[in-house]
Amino acid sequence: MKSANGINLTMLCDFYELTMGNGYFADGKGDRICYFDMFFRDVPDQGGYAIAAGLEQIVDYVQNLHFDEEDIAYLRGRGIFSEGFLDYLRTFRFTGDIWAIPEGTPIFPMEPVLTVRAPAIQAQLLETYLLLEFNHQSLIATKASRICRAAEGRAVLEFGSRRAQGIAGAVTGARAAFIGGCAGTACTVSDQVYGVPAAGTMAHSWVQMFDSELDAFLSYCRTYPRNAVLLVDTYNTLKSGVPNAIRAFNEVLKPLGITKCGIRLDSGDMAYLTRKARKMLDDAGWTECTITVSNSLDERLITEIIRQGAKIDSFGVGERLITSKSSPVFGGVYKLCAVEQADGTLIPKIKVSENPGKITNPGFKKVYRFYNRDTGMAEADYICMRDETVDDTQPLEICDPSERWKRKTMENFRAEELQVPVFLGGELVYQLPTLREIRTECGYQISTLWPEVKRFDNPHSYYVDLSPKLMALKDEMLESHGRRK
Amino acid sequence: MKSANGINLTMLCDFYELTMGNGYFADGKGDRICYFDMFFRDVPDQGGYAIAAGLEQIVDYVQNLHFDEEDIAYLRGRGIFSEGFLDYLRTFRFTGDIWAIPEGTPIFPMEPVLTVRAPAIQAQLLETYLLLEFNHQSLIATKASRICRAAEGRAVLEFGSRRAQGIAGAVTGARAAFIGGCAGTACTVSDQVYGVPAAGTMAHSWVQMFDSELDAFLSYCRTYPRNAVLLVDTYNTLKSGVPNAIRAFNEVLKPLGITKCGIRLDSGDMAYLTRKARKMLDDAGWTECTITVSNSLDERLITEIIRQGAKIDSFGVGERLITSKSSPVFGGVYKLCAVEQADGTLIPKIKVSENPGKITNPGFKKVYRFYNRDTGMAEADYICMRDETVDDTQPLEICDPSERWKRKTMENFRAEELQVPVFLGGELVYQLPTLREIRTECGYQISTLWPEVKRFDNPHSYYVDLSPKLMALKDEMLESHGRRK
Repeated sequence: MKSANGINLTMLCDFYELTMGNGYFADGKGDRICYFDMFFRDVPDQGGYAIAAGLEQIVDYVQNLHFDEEDIAYLRGRGIFSEGFLDYLRTFRFTGDIWAIPEGTPIFPMEPVLTVRAPAIQAQLLETYLLLEFNHQSLIATKASRICRAAEGRAVLEFGSRRAQGIAGAVTGARAAFIGGCAGTACTVSDQVYGVPAAGTMAHSWVQMFDSELDAFLSYCRTYPRNAVLLVDTYNTLKSGVPNAIRAFNEVLKPLGITKCGIRLDSGDMAYLTRKARKMLDDAGWTECTITVSNSLDERLITEIIRQGAKIDSFGVGERLITSKSSPVFGGVYKLCAVEQADGTLIPKIKVSENPGKITNPGFKKVYRFYNRDTGMAEADYICMRDETVDDTQPLEICDPSERWKRKTMENFRAEELQVPVFLGGELVYQLPTLREIRTECGYQISTLWPEVKRFDNPHSYYVDLSPKLMALKDEMLESHGRRK
Repeated sequence: MKSANGINLTMLCDFYELTMGNGYFADGKGDRICYFDMFFRDVPDQGGYAIAAGLEQIVDYVQNLHFDEEDIAYLRGRGIFSEGFLDYLRTFRFTGDIWAIPEGTPIFPMEPVLTVRAPAIQAQLLETYLLLEFNHQSLIATKASRICRAAEGRAVLEFGSRRAQGIAGAVTGARAAFIGGCAGTACTVSDQVYGVPAAGTMAHSWVQMFDSELDAFLSYCRTYPRNAVLLVDTYNTLKSGVPNAIRAFNEVLKPLGITKCGIRLDSGDMAYLTRKARKMLDDAGWTECTITVSNSLDERLITEIIRQGAKIDSFGVGERLITSKSSPVFGGVYKLCAVEQADGTLIPKIKVSENPGKITNPGFKKVYRFYNRDTGMAEADYICMRDETVDDTQPLEICDPSERWKRKTMENFRAEELQVPVFLGGELVYQLPTLREIRTECGYQISTLWPEVKRFDNPHSYYVDLSPKLMALKDEMLESHGRRK
């Protein structure tokens, strides 16, 4: 096999997950029930919110967890795994529970986006793939959300496959970009597999293949009279591209009574060229002709050229979206937060660090989002122990976990739990929404965030607070850790 | 299908490649022989050289080009493709020629890394996947090469799967990192599929699963006495981690006569902690115990902590390698450079741009590398027309294509053609080297580059010159383009 396409994803794990698995097996700890939280610490681009994505692929992965005989043979060849463990892997499947925040939901640092409860070997093995899929798709959905907000309602098309970091970088990247608000993609297979609308008309090579630009445009209009979007910058946008496009529209589309068409610019100054092109098109009567631009765009440049009066109907965004170029890593982590004793007692676990921001929240938890009942706006998230319940008919005092003197009383709010059960006892119990449902929900949820949280620069930090019970547990564990040293 | 894993890669194309294909088919241009060059304009991180990678996966892709009935059905459903074209796709396969620079070779801006000669529809369809694979793997191989040079002979391990941009981001990313000089990866499936040595021992969760750090270390040493690399920073590196590791080594390894073992640090100040840890290990007699570090490393930080006297045997590098975080896009492009008339006459094509750096080199070309016969060092690359031959027994004057007053006479040099035939008439004619051969060759080729070219900051621009014949053709085509305006 010579391609990352078509591998057994169960083997896409860090090798230490297998050495630990074999070690737990040898030590009799393999079946001990563990709880792991997946969460992240910083929003890419120093933004105010991120968008959760990738759960559908995670569900697919978990359902298909298994080791083939060739996987067992490879592992045996490494010479460090016991035959008992290899035998155990033969019938390996996921038997635990997973709760997760649905795709398309705005998420914030430190809150458990996904929680796994499973026997140690299983829970550990999931780490790499869960993080990889969540980190990648959340990264792209988050970047797409920024870019689409910059476009202020104009369509944004994902054009970056050729600069993506590998096959899935392009294919699931286009899916995540759609969740974050893009209207479509250039990537054909993302349409075929996920239903992300794929679009595209011509490259510069089309124009170069003909004896003249006009011939190239005429031929295209004749083949695609109802989808004639002509690339006008192969030679000179204003001197030849736009005039030739108008000639082709006049010659082919006008007799057919077609008024919808488009031009695309892929180089030059977008603010200047689109204003000029718009005027030329309007003067020639092609007022319904759309203008698409696609040249090194991101949320910054789009904001700037709109501010400068560019006349643009849609944006094609390539490498800066599909790699989240200005901030290409989503730092999700997967941390042990509790283990169960044989009698079912939960033992919370904490990861201590000299950097306070890296200290984890211990125990089996859940997350609420508080919406104001009058405005419908999201006011704060609230992490508490799984056995706590928020009564949203009563006022609730919340406090900033790192600066505890910052207190705030929530009133007139509606509390909504964010995590939903996805797997229980290894069985899928979650009805996966369609991709369009996810995208619609994402758009709605973003509308519940205050503009201050959505600002590109120095956004307001959205409140993510801890319940008094969780805070007390954390304090107690840090105290006891301090004493142990 | 819910995963990018296992798709038909033929459908991983930009939609415009299909609309153009259908258009060429309709216009009778589908079988016209075209030449496309793949090249890039800028080295990531403003470095002095890049490393070519991804050819093996491109070969696999080209050999498997085909449309399934479900692909045809999807395309028919789009309602814009003719039945004749869909029929043509049923028996579609690649029948053309491909020449390419082998993987692991240092490459420079503007030189054709890969050249395709094929009927228009075929040549156009390859664009997205060829670019995607070449851009992704060359990006990571290039970054790995920088990081490994910073490590000055110490092993660099690729640890980034969880932060990779999708499945292939991790899996072929680890392959590319190995080509660029990494000693191994944490990604198990990259070992299984490509033979990149996978390694790994324990996460913090292993330590947290036991009642004490010492218990965790003892258990690990008992299970893996010959592979005991202990993670020492879960609680406190110098106060508990290293002392407990020494206790575990003394208790389990010493009686077995084992002297090889290791510790890993994943947080804290690497320069300080490793010096202290080294002294503690040496004082306890564990002089063969290796020290691995893995915390937000890249070529800058590695250079700096080595300079500060850190005592490190190997580096685990994560997100900053697997996403090439500081420069996450490799800007390869795929441009039409010639078409053949029915009588076989070659018509060169050029893409003009107001930005001189974006003007392409026309015609069917090849590339030479000139090595000094005394030093063995690479002195310049030389792009010429395919029918030209360099006689390296005679002096040769070369000149900088953008600053033509910069001239240099090559003497006492050996000229080596860089592109090799990969496909001829649709048949694979290239014997793919093994991954280890590629990596070894890469190391050797990098040793032929002058240190000035390999500097991280402001490296010397390696000469990539054009033959007088190519230069004259380009000048003539630009002249004629200027007149046409």
